[in-house]
Amino acid sequence: MTVPLKELEFTLLDVLGFADSEHDQHIAADLSLRETALDVLINAEKIAVNTLAPSAQKLDIEEPYVKDGRVVLPIETQQALKQLAAGGFIAMSFDEKDDGLDLPFSLSQACAALFASANVSIYSYALLTQGAANLIAHFGSPHQRARWVPEMLRGQVFGTMCLSEPHAGSSLADILTVAVPRDDGRFSVRGRKMWISGGEHELGENIAHLVLARTPDAPAGVKGISLFLVPRFRNATTRESNGVTLIGLNHKMGWRGHVNTALAFGDEEECIGELIGSLHKGLTYMFLMMNEARVTVGLCAAAIGFAGYQYSLAYAHERRQGRKLGERNPDSKQVPIIEHADIKRMLLAQKVYVEGGLDLVIYCAKLVDILRSSADALQKQRAALLLDLLTPIAKSWPAEYGLEANKLAIQIAGGAGYTRDLPLERLYRDNRLNPIHEGALGIHGLDLLGRKVSMHDGEAIKTWQQEIEKTLAASEAYPSLLPMCQDLRSALDKLLKVTETLVLTQKNGNVEQSLANATLYLDAFGGVTVGWRWLVRSLVATQRLTTREQESDINGFLRGKIKACEYFRLYELPRYCAELDTVGLMETPPLTMQGDEF
Amino acid sequence: MTVPLKELEFTLLDVLGFADSEHDQHIAADLSLRETALDVLINAEKIAVNTLAPSAQKLDIEEPYVKDGRVVLPIETQQALKQLAAGGFIAMSFDEKDDGLDLPFSLSQACAALFASANVSIYSYALLTQGAANLIAHFGSPHQRARWVPEMLRGQVFGTMCLSEPHAGSSLADILTVAVPRDDGRFSVRGRKMWISGGEHELGENIAHLVLARTPDAPAGVKGISLFLVPRFRNATTRESNGVTLIGLNHKMGWRGHVNTALAFGDEEECIGELIGSLHKGLTYMFLMMNEARVTVGLCAAAIGFAGYQYSLAYAHERRQGRKLGERNPDSKQVPIIEHADIKRMLLAQKVYVEGGLDLVIYCAKLVDILRSSADALQKQRAALLLDLLTPIAKSWPAEYGLEANKLAIQIAGGAGYTRDLPLERLYRDNRLNPIHEGALGIHGLDLLGRKVSMHDGEAIKTWQQEIEKTLAASEAYPSLLPMCQDLRSALDKLLKVTETLVLTQKNGNVEQSLANATLYLDAFGGVTVGWRWLVRSLVATQRLTTREQESDINGFLRGKIKACEYFRLYELPRYCAELDTVGLMETPPLTMQGDEF
Repeated sequence: MTVPLKELEFTLLDVLGFADSEHDQHIAADLSLRETALDVLINAEKIAVNTLAPSAQKLDIEEPYVKDGRVVLPIETQQALKQLAAGGFIAMSFDEKDDGLDLPFSLSQACAALFASANVSIYSYALLTQGAANLIAHFGSPHQRARWVPEMLRGQVFGTMCLSEPHAGSSLADILTVAVPRDDGRFSVRGRKMWISGGEHELGENIAHLVLARTPDAPAGVKGISLFLVPRFRNATTRESNGVTLIGLNHKMGWRGHVNTALAFGDEEECIGELIGSLHKGLTYMFLMMNEARVTVGLCAAAIGFAGYQYSLAYAHERRQGRKLGERNPDSKQVPIIEHADIKRMLLAQKVYVEGGLDLVIYCAKLVDILRSSADALQKQRAALLLDLLTPIAKSWPAEYGLEANKLAIQIAGGAGYTRDLPLERLYRDNRLNPIHEGALGIHGLDLLGRKVSMHDGEAIKTWQQEIEKTLAASEAYPSLLPMCQDLRSALDKLLKVTETLVLTQKNGNVEQSLANATLYLDAFGGVTVGWRWLVRSLVATQRLTTREQESDINGFLRGKIKACEYFRLYELPRYCAELDTVGLMETPPLTMQGDEF
Repeated sequence: MTVPLKELEFTLLDVLGFADSEHDQHIAADLSLRETALDVLINAEKIAVNTLAPSAQKLDIEEPYVKDGRVVLPIETQQALKQLAAGGFIAMSFDEKDDGLDLPFSLSQACAALFASANVSIYSYALLTQGAANLIAHFGSPHQRARWVPEMLRGQVFGTMCLSEPHAGSSLADILTVAVPRDDGRFSVRGRKMWISGGEHELGENIAHLVLARTPDAPAGVKGISLFLVPRFRNATTRESNGVTLIGLNHKMGWRGHVNTALAFGDEEECIGELIGSLHKGLTYMFLMMNEARVTVGLCAAAIGFAGYQYSLAYAHERRQGRKLGERNPDSKQVPIIEHADIKRMLLAQKVYVEGGLDLVIYCAKLVDILRSSADALQKQRAALLLDLLTPIAKSWPAEYGLEANKLAIQIAGGAGYTRDLPLERLYRDNRLNPIHEGALGIHGLDLLGRKVSMHDGEAIKTWQQEIEKTLAASEAYPSLLPMCQDLRSALDKLLKVTETLVLTQKNGNVEQSLANATLYLDAFGGVTVGWRWLVRSLVATQRLTTREQESDINGFLRGKIKACEYFRLYELPRYCAELDTVGLMETPPLTMQGDEF
């Protein structure tokens, strides 16, 4: 039930040209990278299948609990994380100077797809630790970096992100946690944090909490927030407490194998933190790193969707029910349900959602790689613009449609799919989180329409448009791709036109009107973007089928990509076009409706 | 968190003209019915709020289990069912000769909305018993009717429907349970049944299982299926077993307070059943009664959606987060989230889904009332056609969109909505069943497009069209309703055109092609139908606001209906129109995709 390796190979190597000199000038010298990538993926798949997947159901049932003040987790959690760390899967995309493996982030994300589809509850500990380590590596002092990052990459220390507070979730400007300077240059941290994943457990020797807080003289709002590193223990060996108290565990609908906590800092005894970077830059640092964290949320959503897709596909091949339409003989054998058009429609929908979503997030991961290591300044600049623009989409679109895919997977298995005997309902419950955390859907709509499309005088959206134009130009050489080229171009034109109107409205000061439908705009922008990704995928498949027809074992796989693109054109794209008409409306019920009218 | 009474009043009395002489000639004489209806609703609300709602969370956690061979349920289940029975809420729409109260089915459904929104797990026992009692009352012998129905309506005996078998869910033609004639005119029943809700428990004195089975010489397929009444105990007082064995309990994602079982008949000892009606008519009987059962599924789905809508609405009024767009002062107070346009959009979407769905199912219930008691033959004939046509829609549309509403309710409450501290995730889990049971979504698409729209030479869809035309004609007198009239008419025209093409394709023998997108057709047909219902609602509100402006306490409520209709026009209808373009496609990926191409 993990993502098939040939799918990752296709997306990472063929579609995204991983380690392809034509695409990646900066790594062309390393001719072995392609083979390394395949080796890494094979090893990752082994851990996913043999270690992570088998405990997923158990972890869903045996939720974390507190005993004698300690959080108890099923032993499989620690065993799996040890394997992941030992295999280098936490460290893989970090610098060698941090004891990392210096492998591309896109390859790391491809591995993450395997792990998250197999057991997102366990893998989240690794993801959070990577995110926290990344922040320390970028903005911490050389001493902090050397002190913490290697231990985190080895799985000795785990990381958390402590942002939300009970009264401040989406609105981080309103956090109240304070950090008072001490004589030794460190800070006394005091406050309460909510929704802290991995906030307390015994998986490693220590936990490094990254905490947003205000110093006493800090300005109000987002400009007064600083970032602090707060260890759980002052001394990991003696377990000397640092005043971080577990208030309670949150009990969620899904993601149940991952401990989620409410924490108090400095409630019972002093809690000491170190400033990361400069004062009042906490949110800036967080946002700089958030691109990667947010792309990873999209990755998890697509991966969980993938697990459901694979399971329901196998189920549809095996389960016999009903007969072909027009078969009137009741004594004839029932057919596998994959022969029914409506089942194939639901499989195709899942396919375009999860493969399209995965392609999009790995594309974004590749942009991260270019930013990190390209020598070409222009290429880097373009990658930065694209990544900024696409981050809200790479977070949100796979989250929405990964969940939709899981819903369809249940539907294919019918009553059985609704029971806890099959993994489908668990995957659906797990995926319901993704449109909520790391910025709820509506927040990303405001980010995209209120900021990203107009930043740098619209340079990002122009760059995005140019990338799509390139694909269109290459695809138009193939008559079979012309319908998709036309429909995608027309959707793109519509989107650009609406964007122009809305940005102008915004500039004229009518901010509320222009952003009233920002969430729908985000959805439609995602639809056009994923439509583009599907055209790229169909183009690559078409080219391969044209030039290398001898590979008959993969021809069905490639034809599937072309048909899936056609499905996207006929069944998905029209909805986005209709949505774009709505997006352009200004004085609409969501603005005019009064509270007492509901 | 139940449906507000003023909402039921508006829908049942104002919109559907319940007990209104203009609409209901047959009950115009009973001038007190309107007041009776309000009294009944007030009593139902009391039970919903005071008895059913408080145990909903407990029942979700404390699932049924088997101890010493008996199913154990939380005591609240039995207590609540006793109240429902004592209050006449199981008996209410049955004939007086069955010890029923002879009240309209539409009123019974309005009460059901209150009960199902408060606690669908408990109320389902009553619903199933009503369904089984209805079958016995219609097709059983006078003796069977007198023996069983009154006890069922008093809550002494509960009913089940035993249709599915492990290998035969959607495909009832393939059931294998046999019923061998005995010398005394009764039958020995032998076989296994799956997904039997309420299949075993100690809630009453006995259980009346209605079992589909084949006699030994029966023809293959659906034409050889007969219906049998199989009591759990041969003698309720002595608890003498009748050979019905509990094989196991099913553990579902939601609906956890309701016991769902796998049963064996005649496995260990003889199981004796009585034939209901004539041999080989079992499925016909079942389908004749299924209209009401299916409308009730839609009712439950809308009601569960309603509970989430009400909860998230209250949450949005209370929860403060963020500021109005453009407010730059970080020291200003956070606003209730209902002031954000995107929150209002999600509330409006829920509103049109759950109010529209509820209106549709109560409209269908009113058709049942006309069928039962109208003296006007033409009116009855039209009602029969409309009910047949709309049943797949009244079952499916609220199921799909009630679930979607629950998804949005979670989104409004963010991280809190994803926890089990709030009821929203439970409602979402509960509602996921509704697109699956009583005929999965795809089955209803085939029913609608493959049978209903072409039956009686298209007479049903013509009748439906005429009803919509009537509303359009009445609405066009109000300029404010003209945009909706135009957009609805254009959607209707599009739907009728696609229908004509597809029916023709079918008649020409291309059955697979014409039905390839039947599920989408069902969705779009539902969208146009609910769009019509919203125009009716907006028309009624407009008329009341025009003629009785003094009622200022209800003006906000009425304006809300008008704005919700406008929301439906701008945000929902365009999607259905886009879908209708797709529905008309014939050679599409869902038909051409091969198994190895996924």
